[in-house]
Amino acid sequence: MSQPLTVPPGEKMCLKDFDASYTGGIENKKDAQAELDENIEVLSDLGYRLYAENRRALLLVLQGMDTSGKDGTIRHVMKGFNPQSCQVTSFKQPGIVELDHDFLWRIVRMMPSKGNIGIFNRSHYEDVLIVRVHNLVPKSEWRTRYERINLFEKMAHQGGTSLVKVFLHIGKDEQRKRLQSRLDDPQKHWKFSKADLAEREFWDDYQEAYDDALTRCNTEHAPWHIVPADKKWYRNLVVSRILRQTLEKMDPQYPPAEEGLEGIVVK
Amino acid sequence: MSQPLTVPPGEKMCLKDFDASYTGGIENKKDAQAELDENIEVLSDLGYRLYAENRRALLLVLQGMDTSGKDGTIRHVMKGFNPQSCQVTSFKQPGIVELDHDFLWRIVRMMPSKGNIGIFNRSHYEDVLIVRVHNLVPKSEWRTRYERINLFEKMAHQGGTSLVKVFLHIGKDEQRKRLQSRLDDPQKHWKFSKADLAEREFWDDYQEAYDDALTRCNTEHAPWHIVPADKKWYRNLVVSRILRQTLEKMDPQYPPAEEGLEGIVVK
Repeated sequence: MSQPLTVPPGEKMCLKDFDASYTGGIENKKDAQAELDENIEVLSDLGYRLYAENRRALLLVLQGMDTSGKDGTIRHVMKGFNPQSCQVTSFKQPGIVELDHDFLWRIVRMMPSKGNIGIFNRSHYEDVLIVRVHNLVPKSEWRTRYERINLFEKMAHQGGTSLVKVFLHIGKDEQRKRLQSRLDDPQKHWKFSKADLAEREFWDDYQEAYDDALTRCNTEHAPWHIVPADKKWYRNLVVSRILRQTLEKMDPQYPPAEEGLEGIVVK
Repeated sequence: MSQPLTVPPGEKMCLKDFDASYTGGIENKKDAQAELDENIEVLSDLGYRLYAENRRALLLVLQGMDTSGKDGTIRHVMKGFNPQSCQVTSFKQPGIVELDHDFLWRIVRMMPSKGNIGIFNRSHYEDVLIVRVHNLVPKSEWRTRYERINLFEKMAHQGGTSLVKVFLHIGKDEQRKRLQSRLDDPQKHWKFSKADLAEREFWDDYQEAYDDALTRCNTEHAPWHIVPADKKWYRNLVVSRILRQTLEKMDPQYPPAEEGLEGIVVK
């Protein structure tokens, strides 16, 4: 039994074909911990080399339904990165100034600079998700956005930014449990909003909008990864693996030294 | 034997009165490690509560001579913070657009948002340090900046941002050793630039410019901390203590829950 993380570009993506509770044969958190810890350590080193190299960037796009664990993934997997070279941007409801521009305007402004790792907690994909589900712009507008997203991501890739797109996949019943636990635990009350219950009513519409976005914007240079996220520990493990593989493939190098350093004695 | 970390506002600050190799009676790195680890853990929790509270911000301004350990402090002390609520800005040589504005323009733009921790690796203080030492603007301009900095910091404080200003204090001989080790160790070559040797020639001018900045911009709401930094492990320990004390004093609280959550059952 195995489950693909990615699907070949062009192929139709259907979230209902992916098991959100899949754990790749690993039984529990304890069995995943050693590999996660090792990955975090390796990520710390690779991130530092990317920073020293100062030539390319990495962008992680995190998407998922409410409670799918975007915040938790950042908190638990990204802690090995040097805060100096890692920036997280949470894209929330756009304001008046942002709405006065094309939807990609605010995204471009937050792209990571050379040597850095950018993390988008939600992203330009919201502009073909919540926007589509709630008819916030006309269909004639949002249906053009898939191609524009592909152009933008290709441009970023050619400009030296490696894109990693991750969809945290939870089941509808797992979301129910998580929302309920935010209600039942006073320590988690601050994370709960009644608006989350209203959004839950649109579950099927969101899944359909995701199927479309995941299918249409799944490209060679910026593929989507469907990460089973019902088990938080497996989700963390898989995201750490994806980042590790990406950075290992990038293989960042310390830059060459300035010429003529031999024999210099500092006085 | 003890050494103050701060000096009362108004009092003349003289770096040569502070021992850069001071370690507060702690003998070695091993003896400092347990407290540092504990502080990092506490910082992680306090930072998370600040983020949840989403009402106030914290700004750490890091200054110090070349090789004083600004990067290392960020890497080793800030790793407990959630990257989602911690942003580091390295202020480098300003570009043409930045120079077309007042020196505080680029600073204001990078202030941390509510719930967040901002870290400035170098800052607006460079505009009364390198700028003064190398006559990059006329004296008639830079001498007005101390007061403008005080106004800006007071404004930030009143706007809900707690300011912590840290000067990492190393001795001239310690800088010599660190520059030499960057030359001698090929792994550190990428950190070395011959320009650092040229800057070292201006050591005394910088110390004098620092004495002035530390004296004139040492206020009740934004005091300077002189951190002995010859020993990296002591430097890390002291910075972690300062941050911990600041955040404990701020005492951030989880926000109140939305009304009417009792008895809700998620379907």
